[in-house]
Amino acid sequence: MQDIKEYIELHKERFLSELFDLLRIPSISSQEANKKDMVACAEQWKKMLLDAGADAAQVFPTEGHPIVFGKKIIHASLPTVLVYGHYDVMPVDPIEEWKSDPFEPIVKDDKIWARGADDDKGQSFMQAKAFEFMVNTNQLPCNVKFLLEGEEEIGSHNLYQFCEKNKEMLAADIILVSDTSMLAADMPSITVGLRGLAYWQIKVSGADRDLHSGLYGGSVPNPINILCQMLARATDAYHRVTIPHFYDDVETVSLAERTLMAEAPFDVEEYKKELNIRDICGEFGYSTKERTGIRPCFDICGIWGGYTGEGTKTVIPSEAYAKISTRLVPHQNFQKIGETVKSYFEFIAPKYVKVEVEFLHGGAPYVSPIDTPAYKAAEKALEIVYSKRPLPVRSGGSIPVISGFEQILGTKSILLGFGLLSDAIHSPNENYPLSQFYKGIEAIALFYDYFAQYFKENNP
Amino acid sequence: MQDIKEYIELHKERFLSELFDLLRIPSISSQEANKKDMVACAEQWKKMLLDAGADAAQVFPTEGHPIVFGKKIIHASLPTVLVYGHYDVMPVDPIEEWKSDPFEPIVKDDKIWARGADDDKGQSFMQAKAFEFMVNTNQLPCNVKFLLEGEEEIGSHNLYQFCEKNKEMLAADIILVSDTSMLAADMPSITVGLRGLAYWQIKVSGADRDLHSGLYGGSVPNPINILCQMLARATDAYHRVTIPHFYDDVETVSLAERTLMAEAPFDVEEYKKELNIRDICGEFGYSTKERTGIRPCFDICGIWGGYTGEGTKTVIPSEAYAKISTRLVPHQNFQKIGETVKSYFEFIAPKYVKVEVEFLHGGAPYVSPIDTPAYKAAEKALEIVYSKRPLPVRSGGSIPVISGFEQILGTKSILLGFGLLSDAIHSPNENYPLSQFYKGIEAIALFYDYFAQYFKENNP
Repeated sequence: MQDIKEYIELHKERFLSELFDLLRIPSISSQEANKKDMVACAEQWKKMLLDAGADAAQVFPTEGHPIVFGKKIIHASLPTVLVYGHYDVMPVDPIEEWKSDPFEPIVKDDKIWARGADDDKGQSFMQAKAFEFMVNTNQLPCNVKFLLEGEEEIGSHNLYQFCEKNKEMLAADIILVSDTSMLAADMPSITVGLRGLAYWQIKVSGADRDLHSGLYGGSVPNPINILCQMLARATDAYHRVTIPHFYDDVETVSLAERTLMAEAPFDVEEYKKELNIRDICGEFGYSTKERTGIRPCFDICGIWGGYTGEGTKTVIPSEAYAKISTRLVPHQNFQKIGETVKSYFEFIAPKYVKVEVEFLHGGAPYVSPIDTPAYKAAEKALEIVYSKRPLPVRSGGSIPVISGFEQILGTKSILLGFGLLSDAIHSPNENYPLSQFYKGIEAIALFYDYFAQYFKENNP
Repeated sequence: MQDIKEYIELHKERFLSELFDLLRIPSISSQEANKKDMVACAEQWKKMLLDAGADAAQVFPTEGHPIVFGKKIIHASLPTVLVYGHYDVMPVDPIEEWKSDPFEPIVKDDKIWARGADDDKGQSFMQAKAFEFMVNTNQLPCNVKFLLEGEEEIGSHNLYQFCEKNKEMLAADIILVSDTSMLAADMPSITVGLRGLAYWQIKVSGADRDLHSGLYGGSVPNPINILCQMLARATDAYHRVTIPHFYDDVETVSLAERTLMAEAPFDVEEYKKELNIRDICGEFGYSTKERTGIRPCFDICGIWGGYTGEGTKTVIPSEAYAKISTRLVPHQNFQKIGETVKSYFEFIAPKYVKVEVEFLHGGAPYVSPIDTPAYKAAEKALEIVYSKRPLPVRSGGSIPVISGFEQILGTKSILLGFGLLSDAIHSPNENYPLSQFYKGIEAIALFYDYFAQYFKENNP
């Protein structure tokens, strides 16, 4: 293979400049105000794919944000890789905690700083550049398709429908995704498990207006008091979820697999230091890796109600709200859990308030086999670039669409991600190390090579 | 006594015209933009006091809004009444819900409609007019002082200092206040109890940044989960406060007094309908009147943390906050309670998070005896005007300055208020019935007469 390292060295500055153009677009999918930016970002991807060597690329409007599809077909007899990524990003609040403008990328301390630098503009851009190298050097050993969506951070609602309607167009032998992390910069790993997700909003309503806490305090329902009481009843002192039937379908992971998991290096002191937490905390009887890898959890992601300004206001608010999420593991069904949790809160709601629970979205957990050509190709590519054999790991995060792909298209995914824990994705000061950026492009290019080779060996 | 009814009949139109001039001034104390209006309002009060017959009146600037003081000294041997009121009003938002301009008073359906019509321009104006009658008809049987502040709605901060510095000027035998309500237009009552108050802010901190709820969910402390758990532990299923020693100093009200309280009419269905709540809720074993009158309570006035925008964000926030308040009753000490609650939350704080509890402010509860010349005079005056003996009631609200007067000046207050629940104070469409306006002036005039008489009997 013609040297990818040389190619990167030669095009370094252009790569960064192109990525920065992408990062400058505030493509926050959850905010109505950014609807135009979503379209602009999709159009930029189309252009980028064509520039990189795609035969064709197209922006498909949806009821939400557009989907971009592009392809390069070398020959029908060759295997096909479908690259999936997303161009939408998370909101940036609290904006005051950012040390630089989230949409004005900079390079500092050998890292790129911007919203989306890792998740997932940075990582999916690497896919585009590895593809560009393979095309430009006439080395692409397989067909490649690109699928980019703008709703990954808000549930991928329109992508499912798009897949249903375009099964043939999206047909592939493997889906290649760079949207996950490695254990560490010197500890390559491949994500073989993802947790699922379910997300709700709860609203508790009392009186039809805010009331004076002196005149009414003690005699009328206080929606915040009640919301806190209700939420507190979802977990116990052992950090177990107490919602009935929540654990019913949870896979019991074998002692053998748990022993293997325990081999992945983990330093609790370093973990605490990195996050600046006083101590870890989680479900009794499980290690930190297990708590995020093979166990579900319950988190309140947001809460609000009443007076939140400076000083004091003696008020009993009319309403209080919370956003809650659970992470799910095999074989929990997100729709079933969605209903279980909704019913639970509706059931424990005191009769003197109105409680509305809305199931906002969910996604299924995913587990990938490690004996496939794709896994072996990814393993080999990482071993060459990082000089260390990667470990298969289960991640605590969710990419709901991965299990969706399997269900709708019947295609497995390989999660070849290059993020690091320190990238602060979804947080202020998201960043991405340049070393991971360049090594990743290299590894992806190698992946194509090995994948075509192993695939052929497997399908003679 | 020369007839007050006749005097009112004769001067009705002038009274309304003068009150309307006062109501037209948008003296919203909390808004910087109305600073000039506050000064104008204070000056108008000074003029009104002089016109009504005060020997002297003066506007005192403070670091906030001005204080007005006026007096009429008949003779050093006579008792002195200090009339307290406030000329500031609450903001008018939501302005779109007003049926008429809040600062262009009108009379409609035998009510005055304007911001401040009751609270407290209307009620304190009645004081000025009763005083005018007593002076003009040479019947004033005591010395009278007037104290009007412009910061009642924002905490009376500068009034306390003013009282400390002017103890002699403000010396009086009783403080007369018209800033409360009666049970109903046909059910006169005198407020003899006010609850105290203590107010805190709690902050729970986990990691030093927001974390991805997938990657970390289940393995690190979630500040919102923990805040809810902690707050839920402050009350039980019987709506009792579970914080140790919280009830230690609570006065046990005698069965006799509770029986008397139960005589005050109360319609729970009307109460629910008026507030549009599904049901009442409060401390087990107590009636609604008792819950707000003689029992303390715990209310979360505000809560916030994490993602509170549209849609979903899967985040474990770095911090979560709550503002909490308790209403206190005799003989709870707000400083002691301030410390008790702070210590409790610090004690139950899990070791894996940082919990900071800040005691923001407090005020003492107040109870007025009912065997004093002032109470008996108020009782008699109301009985004559309303043809019904007034009931002593305890209000759930706090007027911190009332216990402040007792502490600083050593003077008790008599709360001779003529507001009705339907007056919508602090809300859109504040109003004040003309019948209460005229009857109130009459009752205040009678109060002076009986107070001087009973005081003399008591101090022969």
